[in-house]
Amino acid sequence: MSDDNTMRAIIKPDSSPGLEMVRAPIPRPGPRDALIKIAATSICGTDLHIFKWDPWARSRINPPIIVGHEFCGHVVEIGDMVTEAKVGDYVSAESHIICHTCSSCRTGRGHLCQNTKIIGVDRDGCWADYIVMPAENLWLNPPDLSLEVASLQENFGNAVHTAFATDLTARKVLVTGCGPVGLMTIMVAKAAGARAIYATDIANYRLRMAKEMGADMAINVSEQNAFDVIWADTGGDGVDVLLEMSGAPQAIDLGFRLLRYGGEAALLGLAPSAIPFDINNHIVFKGATVYGIVGREIWGTWYRMRGLLSGDGIDLSRVITHRFALEDYDKALEVMQSGQSGKVVMFPDGLPHLTNGA
Amino acid sequence: MSDDNTMRAIIKPDSSPGLEMVRAPIPRPGPRDALIKIAATSICGTDLHIFKWDPWARSRINPPIIVGHEFCGHVVEIGDMVTEAKVGDYVSAESHIICHTCSSCRTGRGHLCQNTKIIGVDRDGCWADYIVMPAENLWLNPPDLSLEVASLQENFGNAVHTAFATDLTARKVLVTGCGPVGLMTIMVAKAAGARAIYATDIANYRLRMAKEMGADMAINVSEQNAFDVIWADTGGDGVDVLLEMSGAPQAIDLGFRLLRYGGEAALLGLAPSAIPFDINNHIVFKGATVYGIVGREIWGTWYRMRGLLSGDGIDLSRVITHRFALEDYDKALEVMQSGQSGKVVMFPDGLPHLTNGA
Amino acid sequence: MSDDNTMRAIIKPDSSPGLEMVRAPIPRPGPRDALIKIAATSICGTDLHIFKWDPWARSRINPPIIVGHEFCGHVVEIGDMVTEAKVGDYVSAESHIICHTCSSCRTGRGHLCQNTKIIGVDRDGCWADYIVMPAENLWLNPPDLSLEVASLQENFGNAVHTAFATDLTARKVLVTGCGPVGLMTIMVAKAAGARAIYATDIANYRLRMAKEMGADMAINVSEQNAFDVIWADTGGDGVDVLLEMSGAPQAIDLGFRLLRYGGEAALLGLAPSAIPFDINNHIVFKGATVYGIVGREIWGTWYRMRGLLSGDGIDLSRVITHRFALEDYDKALEVMQSGQSGKVVMFPDGLPHLTNGA
Amino acid sequence: MSDDNTMRAIIKPDSSPGLEMVRAPIPRPGPRDALIKIAATSICGTDLHIFKWDPWARSRINPPIIVGHEFCGHVVEIGDMVTEAKVGDYVSAESHIICHTCSSCRTGRGHLCQNTKIIGVDRDGCWADYIVMPAENLWLNPPDLSLEVASLQENFGNAVHTAFATDLTARKVLVTGCGPVGLMTIMVAKAAGARAIYATDIANYRLRMAKEMGADMAINVSEQNAFDVIWADTGGDGVDVLLEMSGAPQAIDLGFRLLRYGGEAALLGLAPSAIPFDINNHIVFKGATVYGIVGREIWGTWYRMRGLLSGDGIDLSRVITHRFALEDYDKALEVMQSGQSGKVVMFPDGLPHLTNGA
Repeated sequence: MSDDNTMRAIIKPDSSPGLEMVRAPIPRPGPRDALIKIAATSICGTDLHIFKWDPWARSRINPPIIVGHEFCGHVVEIGDMVTEAKVGDYVSAESHIICHTCSSCRTGRGHLCQNTKIIGVDRDGCWADYIVMPAENLWLNPPDLSLEVASLQENFGNAVHTAFATDLTARKVLVTGCGPVGLMTIMVAKAAGARAIYATDIANYRLRMAKEMGADMAINVSEQNAFDVIWADTGGDGVDVLLEMSGAPQAIDLGFRLLRYGGEAALLGLAPSAIPFDINNHIVFKGATVYGIVGREIWGTWYRMRGLLSGDGIDLSRVITHRFALEDYDKALEVMQSGQSGKVVMFPDGLPHLTNGA
Repeated sequence: MSDDNTMRAIIKPDSSPGLEMVRAPIPRPGPRDALIKIAATSICGTDLHIFKWDPWARSRINPPIIVGHEFCGHVVEIGDMVTEAKVGDYVSAESHIICHTCSSCRTGRGHLCQNTKIIGVDRDGCWADYIVMPAENLWLNPPDLSLEVASLQENFGNAVHTAFATDLTARKVLVTGCGPVGLMTIMVAKAAGARAIYATDIANYRLRMAKEMGADMAINVSEQNAFDVIWADTGGDGVDVLLEMSGAPQAIDLGFRLLRYGGEAALLGLAPSAIPFDINNHIVFKGATVYGIVGREIWGTWYRMRGLLSGDGIDLSRVITHRFALEDYDKALEVMQSGQSGKVVMFPDGLPHLTNGA
Repeated sequence: MSDDNTMRAIIKPDSSPGLEMVRAPIPRPGPRDALIKIAATSICGTDLHIFKWDPWARSRINPPIIVGHEFCGHVVEIGDMVTEAKVGDYVSAESHIICHTCSSCRTGRGHLCQNTKIIGVDRDGCWADYIVMPAENLWLNPPDLSLEVASLQENFGNAVHTAFATDLTARKVLVTGCGPVGLMTIMVAKAAGARAIYATDIANYRLRMAKEMGADMAINVSEQNAFDVIWADTGGDGVDVLLEMSGAPQAIDLGFRLLRYGGEAALLGLAPSAIPFDINNHIVFKGATVYGIVGREIWGTWYRMRGLLSGDGIDLSRVITHRFALEDYDKALEVMQSGQSGKVVMFPDGLPHLTNGA
Repeated sequence: MSDDNTMRAIIKPDSSPGLEMVRAPIPRPGPRDALIKIAATSICGTDLHIFKWDPWARSRINPPIIVGHEFCGHVVEIGDMVTEAKVGDYVSAESHIICHTCSSCRTGRGHLCQNTKIIGVDRDGCWADYIVMPAENLWLNPPDLSLEVASLQENFGNAVHTAFATDLTARKVLVTGCGPVGLMTIMVAKAAGARAIYATDIANYRLRMAKEMGADMAINVSEQNAFDVIWADTGGDGVDVLLEMSGAPQAIDLGFRLLRYGGEAALLGLAPSAIPFDINNHIVFKGATVYGIVGREIWGTWYRMRGLLSGDGIDLSRVITHRFALEDYDKALEVMQSGQSGKVVMFPDGLPHLTNGA
């Protein structure tokens, strides 16, 4: 902690594009909060929306605000009433701070809480030296988990939540959209023993990564007729499961056309707006089951993640393509926007020698 | 059986609107078939499509063909290899003749068989004195079940299949569309102990019936702001379950807007075509689960129906508003088209004194 | 509140049979607690165990302690940090105070928390003028709910949790054990549209009540061969669902023998100890699914209860056979022990004119 | 086919221990049957029971009968009405011939049909040169599937049916009993991405195989305190899933004690008789869900198997430890009885050079 009780923080300073690194007061924990020293923080598509100041960002964000919601770090101070964490704990965090009083929260579906406050969106985030979080939002990491993977867990949770909406083992799975979450979803499908994993996207960089993460077939829909290729490979049965990660109307349509009768679809991607949708053929006649996916189950998904990341399970570092010091956030954002990247991680204390949290 | 081995039959004679009653040969059962003397036969929306010769009918029907697929009757002859039925049995029938060799059939989802042949659509139907059916498609009725209710079971199965896609007991349920299947769905929701049943339609005749069948609130969407009324009545939570029976784009949109976070929707109604659909707000953000519903489970739904119709369960005759002799099929169709009817049943042997099948 | 800050309370004073009414200090709420003035409190089998000081009670209870865990009342004071409740609220309470930090609590299964503290068992209970509860454990009642029914909800939750372990609509259901929870389970099965409800017990008083609550057949197993009678009535198929509420080894055996192939069993009753169990025929060969039931889902079951108790749903007062002033707790316990009762409710302020909570 | 229309067959000749190879008439297919030339046939525990003529065998088997129910082969003749198969097809078979008319069969649960006839148990089996099967019981193998693995599928189906009773991905799984089905279950759990696989048995030979198949920990319960070891390794949480494959009372007790609160157990093993079972602590208090497993889903499990065996999935040949010519069936049985084996496969045409079915 600096002498003047300030820290570095990357903020959206006002209602216009761009971000800025400033010095801000180190926040103080309330009685049920913890103060965490950030060790690693990763970039999400949401952060790009805020950086670019697109319509969604304009409608949701009230500057000035510290951005960022994926991180890991160490607890340096706790409030009086905190029992869930102690100073020195190596933690990641669920970024959604839920109300605990609505019917969703009170029935084990806190990820659907409509009163949720998200760090880096509705209150100060983690692209900084420190963050204050409710202690109940902290997830204790095993000491041998690398900092960069620990930071990724929040986002990995989206992939895991989507993948576990249905059972993938021994099934034919289509993942539409190979951004970082799509890539991590492919890793989960592979770990779960999917019979075949088909991946689609429009960027060859990402499709190459999809193959590396375990896709049996990765198709550039702007170059090939993905329907014909995948349909043929399934022997004309279609896929058992669609995991829609892109929100692109063409991908949604393609995915449902490839879905088998009686198949299941989990939808995470956000469409640009209401889109033409063939409910008859996509859902009704097929007897399909469709799951809307938002956030992560708190904490069901996190326990599943722990299982996937332990032992000889998933090596999540394979999805990370670039690492930067936090001060180089502008370069990191540039890489993210290029489409020539997987996950990008930043380190407030400079590039580590990839040590773990111990 | 007449001396000349012919019978009365209502056919679509050629590729143009209308139906015609003719004399046709009494069909002969194959080794695994049964010949059934029709006792009652009811009218479905599908029959109206064929009568009017709309685009769907033109694309699917090959005249000449005997129409009709809802019926009950008595077995008068069986093929050599039939063990499932015997002469004299009082039966209804599953109208979908499935292939038993596709993966859907072989995994207990025969209602999704893509090789299905439907009587009255793909092969001769039941608006006649007799029909031949595979014996395995017959459902043995209890002797005290009335003829008219026995005939309705095929169609009731659509309602039951939809209603049992999720659990309705103690839940708030919205039924959009109060045609006969919607009305029967309301009866099921009532029998299952739904906490509240909301019904919407554009015809006051049907909405009055919806109230009689058990709807707590029946709203004409062309007269009232159904969203505001139902939203307020649920205390701003929305409904737990949407049962979409209309296919009307406005109803689909209304239904999903009223669906609570984490809610479930079962879709049976067929939209006129691809429609604008707000996937983000209707499915993804809500964490909704959506079930496409087609046909009936063979025979899971029929067993459930037996349970619902037995004892002091559902009195399905309440949904029947008109009864005709088969020869008056033109009057029956006229009533069906008027929108001023529930289910309409026809009797080849003339109007009964509503005796049961014994 | 009395001048001397004391209240009446019924306690287990020491390690021996019996209970005693004493004057005890009115408890003080902590920052997240509420103080509730008790309006009605009902008797559970657990209370009898404590009264009799049986082996279970001896192993679990640390006297002195105020007993009782089913109640309703009004909030008279709240702690500084309480946001979920306010003075004047008409409330019932979840009796299990859970830890929120174990994996069960953190995955929406708080009813399986192994750190649970139960009022009247592990800490002071509600057979008194006042109780302090964590505010998060309070359930706001609608003003028109009668005091006695409001008090019953905790116990009703056991019945609802058991009944909703599977789907009862249109199914044949066997309830073994017609104590108060069994009787309430029968009410739920009836409300859910069960096709047939079979009930067994050894007390004719309770079997008469079972019939009143909706059982189609109520059989005294000490007088009749329940297997033969029920088996015949199901046409040799057995029941679809077993709800085991007694814990009696003979009832468990009977229930599983009557369960159909592919059937489901929910087990709430506690056996006296390990019992001989025919796993092969009861579970394996039958392809049965068995659910262990403990407590109530927090708060999933409570929302379901609200649905069942609202509108023209279940009238839970029908299961109440006796009402006493709290000071007559000895008479109330005597009635409970007689086997000639349903639920017994006590009122600290004397017998009401059955007013509701408003 | 021999000139005299006879074939070699291994039969249980009369009501006493032992088996005998005889010449028997080659069976003739009925109109819906196929005649198959056996290429490989494997040994199941059931065959040993029949060989030894234990109480179960005495109560079920009517000699003389050809034994054996696991096989693959090629169709050499089909009945007049057969459409599902053709001469030359390389097939395995579902050994349970079901009735298609009971309520289990008619609701997609044919594996629970009480009228099932099993080959090698209720009618002539496959330890012979030929067998007649209903064509609908045949499963078409891909041409590149090895004969020995094709033969194993029936038995593999028990493992797959058990493993898919619940979701294993990222979960801690305990497999009690490491006979061949237990070993194959471990392979499935590994392929499904289980977080940890614990295996128990009393034979070190099998425990070594369990480790080879993917168990993280394989414990001889007669040498170590399996409870303490596994409990500690789970961090005191217990296992998420119990897959009970042994039927041993001690294993059942151990498995349930190790099961976590809210865990799931799938039971395939058959206990010697009714056993003492602690329902309270094993099921009720734990809120456990228990699935009885019998046979395989027809054909759901087979489709899952196809997925598991395809591509870079499970190599089932690793569970085969011994191969014999059919004529050496006595040596094969001896090996099976020794406890020093995994699966044992026999080949009517002598030991193959392990060619596939093409």
